[in-house]
Amino acid sequence: MTRRVRIDLEYDGTGFCGWQLQPGVATVQGSLENALSVLHGGKRIRVTGAGRTDAGVHATGQVAHAILPDARYTVERLCRALNALTPEDIVVHRVSEVPAAFDARRSACWRAYRYRLSASRLACGRQYVWSVAEPLSWRLLSRCAEALPGSHSFTSFCVASSAGKGTVCRILEARWRRRGTEFHFDIRGNRFVHGMVRSLVGTMVAVASGRMTVEDFKLLLLRPARGRSAPPAPAHGLTLVKVAYAGEE
Amino acid sequence: MTRRVRIDLEYDGTGFCGWQLQPGVATVQGSLENALSVLHGGKRIRVTGAGRTDAGVHATGQVAHAILPDARYTVERLCRALNALTPEDIVVHRVSEVPAAFDARRSACWRAYRYRLSASRLACGRQYVWSVAEPLSWRLLSRCAEALPGSHSFTSFCVASSAGKGTVCRILEARWRRRGTEFHFDIRGNRFVHGMVRSLVGTMVAVASGRMTVEDFKLLLLRPARGRSAPPAPAHGLTLVKVAYAGEE
Repeated sequence: MTRRVRIDLEYDGTGFCGWQLQPGVATVQGSLENALSVLHGGKRIRVTGAGRTDAGVHATGQVAHAILPDARYTVERLCRALNALTPEDIVVHRVSEVPAAFDARRSACWRAYRYRLSASRLACGRQYVWSVAEPLSWRLLSRCAEALPGSHSFTSFCVASSAGKGTVCRILEARWRRRGTEFHFDIRGNRFVHGMVRSLVGTMVAVASGRMTVEDFKLLLLRPARGRSAPPAPAHGLTLVKVAYAGEE
Repeated sequence: MTRRVRIDLEYDGTGFCGWQLQPGVATVQGSLENALSVLHGGKRIRVTGAGRTDAGVHATGQVAHAILPDARYTVERLCRALNALTPEDIVVHRVSEVPAAFDARRSACWRAYRYRLSASRLACGRQYVWSVAEPLSWRLLSRCAEALPGSHSFTSFCVASSAGKGTVCRILEARWRRRGTEFHFDIRGNRFVHGMVRSLVGTMVAVASGRMTVEDFKLLLLRPARGRSAPPAPAHGLTLVKVAYAGEE
């Protein structure tokens, strides 16, 4: 009897080549699959994540699912064993049994990301924040974010290779918050195209530092045309903070 | 004409064998002295820090001073050059000219440290927080901290080798604060003996988890006797947050 489990986890993306399994390099999916394989007599076990974070991107609220060949472990034991068998930059918070219909990726209602900017250079915590040297206009950042809620085609804000797969996303919330000397960009949407949050942040920073206008930014949303957005913000400032499913908040 | 400069800096202690210069290993003092030496034609320049943080301890508010052989650089240029020539886990926030009487260590009125505890395991930011698995009593932590303000001999809470040098410290403030799922211990004193904050935290955690009593903790303060305190808390939870001088808050 196979069974399906949901895995709620956190990771520091610094040391990983992203979520997705790639031969010969450290990935989060690879670490989890290895650990589950060790626990099940070497059987290959596939883990599916809700968001395939890029190299260097962090997650405090990633969700994944896996189909296990048998029920030899309780979910509590699986959680402890996964923590013991994966490196310390992965922390599994919970393992729970889920119905066969649960798919971490397809069942997700929305995903939330946070991007952290700092106006000053940091030593402690520099792994999680993009330090921007140019002065930024708080007002212009906020005006850009106000344009985001609703459904738009994000063709201008995705990695070119993924543009064919459908680029319409419904943004439920997008706002900048001040936190001490940092600016946090919080965005929540039904889906995200590849590279979208980093591209949005890179372009909003270009606006806030005077290299583009708010109107330029809005035009990229209204008349999608790849190639005019600013370079994407670096990966290390981005964190996947939550994935929500039907019946949850 | 020599001149004396004050250096305000921050560092992530993870990659350093502490502040103090040691041959053959990475130290913060060593990195700063190397950079200043490069900038002054290879001359040996000594840097004195206000607090000699141990291996793995961080600082967001360290202060140091150095005597430079000449005035070939403005202080702004020195600041930029030090940031360019030291690794990215050191950030120099300011370099300023100071009178000959200024000594980063001896002129300091007080130092403030923060120790961060977390009740859950963390992936992001685990370098700065001690995750304690056992449940801790908030009330007992607070009762211990209440006993600290005032002048005490901290013989029971220092590394044995330094016990001879005078162990009386005047604690100006000591309290635990809740920050989300974390507990922060903030302590401010005119001076600290070697290993003192980590030893205090280790012992308070022993009380808060039921392995010792508040009375045991108070006795260690009242009747100093090396060897009965609990093992020190790990270095990576500790940060030197501020050093204050006369005329500053």
